[in-house]
Amino acid sequence: MTTTVRSSGLPADAFCSTCPTRELLNRLAGKWTVLVIDALYEGTMRFSELRRRLEGVSQKMLTETLRSLERDGFVTRKVYASVPPKVEYTLTPLGASLREPVAALRLWSEHHINDVERAQARHDARARARVTE
Amino acid sequence: MTTTVRSSGLPADAFCSTCPTRELLNRLAGKWTVLVIDALYEGTMRFSELRRRLEGVSQKMLTETLRSLERDGFVTRKVYASVPPKVEYTLTPLGASLREPVAALRLWSEHHINDVERAQARHDARARARVTE
Repeated sequence: MTTTVRSSGLPADAFCSTCPTRELLNRLAGKWTVLVIDALYEGTMRFSELRRRLEGVSQKMLTETLRSLERDGFVTRKVYASVPPKVEYTLTPLGASLREPVAALRLWSEHHINDVERAQARHDARARARVTE
Repeated sequence: MTTTVRSSGLPADAFCSTCPTRELLNRLAGKWTVLVIDALYEGTMRFSELRRRLEGVSQKMLTETLRSLERDGFVTRKVYASVPPKVEYTLTPLGASLREPVAALRLWSEHHINDVERAQARHDARARARVTE
């Protein structure tokens, strides 16, 4: 993949603190973004469906995550003038292109959770041993 | 990829709020984790080198990120009894296996930053238009 040149003429570089790529990466890597993108890849969803799918998310956090995804061009929001109003969220093609890296991160976590829990147990046992030495 | 069964007998599922996979994914997707893993893939680094590579990270944030990566089994820390003491960080094989999904997310961000900035500009212009209507 060749380096992307930004409108300012500077290269896109997430390691650089003043590059907007850093901020974008932080948003992508945010707590709920990974799960929202991954869930919407299954198809258009209503707010209430998304909230059920992302067990434990608060209404406020889900609203904020969806607003930020909409502004970044990853998600479109459609409001139907029904009573009560129905709101649906759909991935854009740009958002859908994010699904692969985002799902890879989720699958890695699910696949390696046992390795990580074993490493944590070893780490905590060593820390306890140091305290009682 | 088949579903991983945890020691509790339950399946690993990041969408489930009580599964430790959720917490792991949140840590992986944390602000600095992506960049630390990606940087250490280039080779062992001293704290000061890492801090320079991750432009803008504070000493406190980098210390916390490294501690959490060490506990999860992704990074090892080696202290040399020199004056001043030298501390080196290296990716473990488990940490190295994380590099691919993590780098994919960084590269996606660098590659699509122009698309995202255009989407933001369109979104903000629409929002301004609504205000002055």
